[in-house]
Amino acid sequence: MVHCYSLIHDDLPAMDNDDLRRGLPTCHVKFDEATAILAGDALLTRAFEVLGDPATHTDPRVRSDLVCTLARAAGADGMVGGQMLDLLAAETPLEIAEITRMQRMKTGALIAFSCEAGALLGKASDSARHALHAYAHDLGLAFQIVDDILDAEGNDEEMGKRTHKDQGAGKATFVSVLGIDRARAQSDMLAKQAVQHLDIFNETAEPLRALTSFVVNRRH
Amino acid sequence: MVHCYSLIHDDLPAMDNDDLRRGLPTCHVKFDEATAILAGDALLTRAFEVLGDPATHTDPRVRSDLVCTLARAAGADGMVGGQMLDLLAAETPLEIAEITRMQRMKTGALIAFSCEAGALLGKASDSARHALHAYAHDLGLAFQIVDDILDAEGNDEEMGKRTHKDQGAGKATFVSVLGIDRARAQSDMLAKQAVQHLDIFNETAEPLRALTSFVVNRRH
Repeated sequence: MVHCYSLIHDDLPAMDNDDLRRGLPTCHVKFDEATAILAGDALLTRAFEVLGDPATHTDPRVRSDLVCTLARAAGADGMVGGQMLDLLAAETPLEIAEITRMQRMKTGALIAFSCEAGALLGKASDSARHALHAYAHDLGLAFQIVDDILDAEGNDEEMGKRTHKDQGAGKATFVSVLGIDRARAQSDMLAKQAVQHLDIFNETAEPLRALTSFVVNRRH
Repeated sequence: MVHCYSLIHDDLPAMDNDDLRRGLPTCHVKFDEATAILAGDALLTRAFEVLGDPATHTDPRVRSDLVCTLARAAGADGMVGGQMLDLLAAETPLEIAEITRMQRMKTGALIAFSCEAGALLGKASDSARHALHAYAHDLGLAFQIVDDILDAEGNDEEMGKRTHKDQGAGKATFVSVLGIDRARAQSDMLAKQAVQHLDIFNETAEPLRALTSFVVNRRH
């Protein structure tokens, strides 16, 4: 839900001004801007309602931990803060360390929450929780680098959204700074590193290992 | 924080398109639209972070109850839903029962949460909690009727925001449907009713009684 809210608000004319998402018209195109703003607000709010609901976990401590962890990942020190840095970057192009920080906040924080939430729900040990966080941290950045590569290489139809946008906006991305080959090497290295964090788990972590391959090998 | 987020998003060009709030330029005028969207998102998220934080209450059950109660008040069945009904009302003017429902969702739900939150934090009895909810329910509607009266009567300088907006937008309000005198009588009746719900409390509820007078007698 938080992912959907952020896409709806991200696509707004005042933000990325996107008219296509997953091959379909974006929310504000299909309906209108006011509806898209409210739909995003409603989805963000609903996410917290679900996490606070006793049906999510019988232990209220787990529920309030989930709420705080999501709020930190989604808010001003996480996704929203990253989007703000991204907006400011249109005025002053970023260097690689700044792009990394911005992307870790903008997309990495929410991916990290998704993994940590499993640890919280399962009352995993601190070491398991930290391993999942570290895995997600690297996976999130690998995901974003691949996203930049696909934006530079892809076509709208295959991607289901407008591509070549970063280039058009004159934005510094992993690809514009590193070039395609070094960006690809970097995402492969991060994916390998991500999987290594899973070494403390046995075959139960196999879906996460498979997810890592999917993320770096995806074509759209 | 939820109140501030909703004002920032409410003032956006796609929503109420307001340039003045509390006598100062609105967020999107002072900064820009993208910043205002993100500032609203960040404030909404931060509200849940605060409620989930152990510093708010040592009992995690209280914290997750607060989260759920706020989410229901703020979300699609509360404030956001009321704003959507308000937007749709620009196309089909509402009758009095529909205006009441819309306003109960749009502003009443959050006022009710503010009162119920006190009951939750203090682990009040069910009867005390229900009394506070009923009080807030009536107070919220009285507040909104007075808001409509002030919008119809007021001037921008005194109010610190643009007035006569409802009339300009051709929107049905308590004033346009009931007229000023009946609207005033209605808000006085609701205020009296609100205070009666507080009869089960002793002088500890005095601030809430004083708040009721303030709400119906305010000039801006």
